[in-house]
Amino acid sequence: MRALVKSVAGPGFTLSDVPEPTIRDDEVLVCVRRAGVCGTDVHIYDWDDWAKGRCKPPFVVGHEFAGDVVQVGRLVTDVKEGDRVTAEGHIVDGRCLLCRTGNAHVCPHTKIIGVDRDGCFAEYIAMPATNIWHLDDNIPYEIGGIHDPMGNAFHTALTAEIPGATVLVTGCGPIGIFAIGICKTAGASRIIASDVNPTRLALAKQMGAHEAVHPSEAEAAVKRATDGLGVDVVLEMSGVPSAIHQGFQLVRVGGRVQMLGIPAKPMDVNFATEVIFKGITIYGVVGRRMYDTWIQMTRFLRSGAFDPTPVITHRFPMEEFDAAIAAIKSGEAGKVVFEIA
Amino acid sequence: MRALVKSVAGPGFTLSDVPEPTIRDDEVLVCVRRAGVCGTDVHIYDWDDWAKGRCKPPFVVGHEFAGDVVQVGRLVTDVKEGDRVTAEGHIVDGRCLLCRTGNAHVCPHTKIIGVDRDGCFAEYIAMPATNIWHLDDNIPYEIGGIHDPMGNAFHTALTAEIPGATVLVTGCGPIGIFAIGICKTAGASRIIASDVNPTRLALAKQMGAHEAVHPSEAEAAVKRATDGLGVDVVLEMSGVPSAIHQGFQLVRVGGRVQMLGIPAKPMDVNFATEVIFKGITIYGVVGRRMYDTWIQMTRFLRSGAFDPTPVITHRFPMEEFDAAIAAIKSGEAGKVVFEIA
Amino acid sequence: MRALVKSVAGPGFTLSDVPEPTIRDDEVLVCVRRAGVCGTDVHIYDWDDWAKGRCKPPFVVGHEFAGDVVQVGRLVTDVKEGDRVTAEGHIVDGRCLLCRTGNAHVCPHTKIIGVDRDGCFAEYIAMPATNIWHLDDNIPYEIGGIHDPMGNAFHTALTAEIPGATVLVTGCGPIGIFAIGICKTAGASRIIASDVNPTRLALAKQMGAHEAVHPSEAEAAVKRATDGLGVDVVLEMSGVPSAIHQGFQLVRVGGRVQMLGIPAKPMDVNFATEVIFKGITIYGVVGRRMYDTWIQMTRFLRSGAFDPTPVITHRFPMEEFDAAIAAIKSGEAGKVVFEIA
Amino acid sequence: MRALVKSVAGPGFTLSDVPEPTIRDDEVLVCVRRAGVCGTDVHIYDWDDWAKGRCKPPFVVGHEFAGDVVQVGRLVTDVKEGDRVTAEGHIVDGRCLLCRTGNAHVCPHTKIIGVDRDGCFAEYIAMPATNIWHLDDNIPYEIGGIHDPMGNAFHTALTAEIPGATVLVTGCGPIGIFAIGICKTAGASRIIASDVNPTRLALAKQMGAHEAVHPSEAEAAVKRATDGLGVDVVLEMSGVPSAIHQGFQLVRVGGRVQMLGIPAKPMDVNFATEVIFKGITIYGVVGRRMYDTWIQMTRFLRSGAFDPTPVITHRFPMEEFDAAIAAIKSGEAGKVVFEIA
Repeated sequence: MRALVKSVAGPGFTLSDVPEPTIRDDEVLVCVRRAGVCGTDVHIYDWDDWAKGRCKPPFVVGHEFAGDVVQVGRLVTDVKEGDRVTAEGHIVDGRCLLCRTGNAHVCPHTKIIGVDRDGCFAEYIAMPATNIWHLDDNIPYEIGGIHDPMGNAFHTALTAEIPGATVLVTGCGPIGIFAIGICKTAGASRIIASDVNPTRLALAKQMGAHEAVHPSEAEAAVKRATDGLGVDVVLEMSGVPSAIHQGFQLVRVGGRVQMLGIPAKPMDVNFATEVIFKGITIYGVVGRRMYDTWIQMTRFLRSGAFDPTPVITHRFPMEEFDAAIAAIKSGEAGKVVFEIA
Repeated sequence: MRALVKSVAGPGFTLSDVPEPTIRDDEVLVCVRRAGVCGTDVHIYDWDDWAKGRCKPPFVVGHEFAGDVVQVGRLVTDVKEGDRVTAEGHIVDGRCLLCRTGNAHVCPHTKIIGVDRDGCFAEYIAMPATNIWHLDDNIPYEIGGIHDPMGNAFHTALTAEIPGATVLVTGCGPIGIFAIGICKTAGASRIIASDVNPTRLALAKQMGAHEAVHPSEAEAAVKRATDGLGVDVVLEMSGVPSAIHQGFQLVRVGGRVQMLGIPAKPMDVNFATEVIFKGITIYGVVGRRMYDTWIQMTRFLRSGAFDPTPVITHRFPMEEFDAAIAAIKSGEAGKVVFEIA
Repeated sequence: MRALVKSVAGPGFTLSDVPEPTIRDDEVLVCVRRAGVCGTDVHIYDWDDWAKGRCKPPFVVGHEFAGDVVQVGRLVTDVKEGDRVTAEGHIVDGRCLLCRTGNAHVCPHTKIIGVDRDGCFAEYIAMPATNIWHLDDNIPYEIGGIHDPMGNAFHTALTAEIPGATVLVTGCGPIGIFAIGICKTAGASRIIASDVNPTRLALAKQMGAHEAVHPSEAEAAVKRATDGLGVDVVLEMSGVPSAIHQGFQLVRVGGRVQMLGIPAKPMDVNFATEVIFKGITIYGVVGRRMYDTWIQMTRFLRSGAFDPTPVITHRFPMEEFDAAIAAIKSGEAGKVVFEIA
Repeated sequence: MRALVKSVAGPGFTLSDVPEPTIRDDEVLVCVRRAGVCGTDVHIYDWDDWAKGRCKPPFVVGHEFAGDVVQVGRLVTDVKEGDRVTAEGHIVDGRCLLCRTGNAHVCPHTKIIGVDRDGCFAEYIAMPATNIWHLDDNIPYEIGGIHDPMGNAFHTALTAEIPGATVLVTGCGPIGIFAIGICKTAGASRIIASDVNPTRLALAKQMGAHEAVHPSEAEAAVKRATDGLGVDVVLEMSGVPSAIHQGFQLVRVGGRVQMLGIPAKPMDVNFATEVIFKGITIYGVVGRRMYDTWIQMTRFLRSGAFDPTPVITHRFPMEEFDAAIAAIKSGEAGKVVFEIA
């Protein structure tokens, strides 16, 4: 089959012919239709320090996808051939203290497809049946193909209390703008989005932000909307140190900062004034809650009140992977999707 | 001043001239513009067993209102003449264990205006400054005048987890239909409303119910919408025993039943099958959380995503109190409001 | 092997020779050392209405046990021969909405060992590996053998907020007295236990109740300990209607009633005065949370601050099953245990 | 009256004769019996940068005390002459969004006695009646006099879930060792305390730590006690950067870090590896929750299971204030108390 392979320890991907995966008794084989391209894929493409430390070529890249089940293992009872599906890309052990207490998203033995084992930028992928998530009939494959990052946004937003809340979203990449739509649907009373990029600010408005501003205007916008007090909730989606500091500054006392964006390196923090004296709560977001987050996604999509379609701005055949990566790097893209089959 | 008075221990109200109230140092005087009429007022009008046991005529009736502050006590610092306000009608001691732990809504020493002391069906009412709630400039008096029952609905709905939830609302009186709008705004994925009255079902649809059905069709609607599992949340707004049983039946295992409707008398309950084996949580709703609920209301109104105006179906001058009471008794009314000044 | 069998649809058990169970690839075989006898077993022994409606003879009875793993299926990776273990007796599907959101204890497809399939009053039992729970080296088999009912007590107690709380435990059967010890260890400030049986009240005191009284004295004890306000938390462990009413009466406004005891039939409840006007929360307890409750148990035992040993008052060889059932029926027993191998 | 006064903008205190305070209608006058000395008082004594920026001499120092009410204002209804009391030292506005939603501990308009207005190192102090907390008859004044810092410890510990938890307490100053006793009473299964000072480690053991170790041994102790996973909860009581990093390192994935210790200046943090990838929650602790924390304290003391007496290691007359400050600076002291009247 055709697949995008990280073949050697250096920059780039290779479009190759590789053997179709075989499945274990508790796995299923999925014919991939659509696959989302993620910042993580860019790291692997660029072969940066994180990628060097984590990944072991050769392997098939990609961890966000949807498609059709074409084969099921002998022990699988609740997935069948022909099912339209997406999947949780974190493969966990299911037996550790974390997995056994509803915290599988931080299972220490997590293997991620497309990072730690073969991924989904391919015609077929083998997945454990327990990771499979069914798509409603009316959900297009391309929406199915972005459930993974959308799930990050659901996890980030809905572990805060959103109905009625004032919310600042720092960073309007794809996960940030998903989160804006989620907060809007969940009844946030005021959503202020900040980013340096006008294209992304336009997407933020389209997804429901009441205001979408350059970071230099965020303080004024927040103060105006909250009688100077600060927002109830900050969703930190950028990983940029100045945005993180601004989040700590603009959250109200006793408020909540959800951190998803990954700073590239250590940064100076004044815990006294930024965290402790403000009495705030900080929550580090990893993946998606299994499977509370997935049920929330299905429910939001089912109601029709939340439509992530505008977040998808670029669609490419898998062959044009260089263009796809370039689109992400440009900073102008929302979500970039491969159309595979 | 003119006021509707429960003058004697028997049926009816009397429109009388009574002295204007005087205020204490920590109170304010409010000129009443609009006042909501409530089922509780009907109980007092009818002088039923509950009223006989609780109320001590003569007193001015009415506990839901909005108006303008016309005088402030010497110790009051944050309310001033000319402020447009509504108020929490439960006057609590502020010092008991409940008040000191964020549970003032169940303060054992609560006095309710229009029930335990003079109320708001009058040109003026004296209120403790701590009970005053400011209205945004763009909120009409008549919406201010229904904050009390709307707050019951906010308390009932938002102490459950609504974003993404499937919800059954049993009973589409005013508080039920407020709750439907709140759940819709807060991102409930499916809201099924039930009532015997077609007028109320139409209001339920108008406020955002996905389905509004006769109780005899509720089971089928819930099963269809939840793959037979039952809803995540039931908001019991009727007080009718058959609806309460239906709520226990149609909530999913592990779900939540919020009970606001008041059954008139004891009823048979099978705790084994209706509660314990289902692993559900039941929450008894009293008044409004002070003042979390009020902030939520202000936020929902401020966002523009929630508009309670359609709930108000009848408006009367205070003189037509018999007609107002009759409108409520007819079962065809949403919220009934007195236009006072 | 020898086993206690419910062989026909009528009263009693039969001690029989039955074939050793065979295991599936994802199961393990356990040699049973100790097994707890439960009120549920009495229902099956007596062949009451519940048993008639639920159970299909013939089957091996018993659902609480500990022992040694003697054989493991091909797919099992984290249990090995020789492990000292107990097990969660509720076998769930692992795939439904409940199982996928941390609510497996209310999985609608639960099969209970000794009720819906062969149980543990036998020399050997086959169990799915996912249900196995390892015992620390210093935990005796007989304590392992009562993890199931002890887990009910942990679930009941620790889903309320116990540190500092005032607690009323209505019903001092084995689960009630476990709960008393748990509340004591978790820092409840005042534990009042009620029961009609002096032997049980003595056990309640031994496990840490500050007061253990006849139900007729419970009201006075609660009022005295809480300045007349009522307790923060009621653990209803009796299923007796008068105790349930007393729980509703003696919980403080805004408090919490955890219901585990199963009333035999419907009872009259005044939701207005007993639940709604009091603003309380009721929680129906099913089984044990999987596996949060089990981790709590292991932690409490590991710390040494909680010792359930005094709860075990009777030990029998399996042959003396009639005597074991009689001990439970006498109302004088704490926990009754079979010593099997 | 005699009082310790910060008389000028420079180091030291002055023991002076100052006028007795007068009270407002809603205040009471307390004759001070015992008063705790706090690190904050040392900052003011030393006149460090924080003190220079915050305090405006002259004012009476001290914010932890207990004593007898000797005069009550005209509007005070629930405090009377002769009452034995302590008090919450944070005077809040009672009207802001925070105060109205159970978050008065972060009221932006907080005034602290002994910092922003006259304090309690004096024969008498005037306090708003709403800040007064009654002492049970059997609680000595000196325990009453340390409710403020003990309350910090209760707030820090009991906003995490302690029953059954594994806990690391970094920093064994007075608040750290209070917290150890609280966690022990609340059923923590394993408490590991770390500090560089052997005297403090001995106090930690005395208050209930299972292990009390030098920070260089903390990692090994935590790994041993948690199968290498890390603790459920870290209580950061030191404000020392190396301890904060160690807390982030030794908390388990998905765990909780409660930050009370105040770092003197900004520090480098790797949010990616220390917070986000670990999926942890951080909570900044300010003061005491009003008045949930106070009720918990009263309950813990009332039960007899928690005794803070060993934390008090030094007692001085107010005249020996230099010695008291020196005792704290030595790092060898637990809690230091002034015996005033």
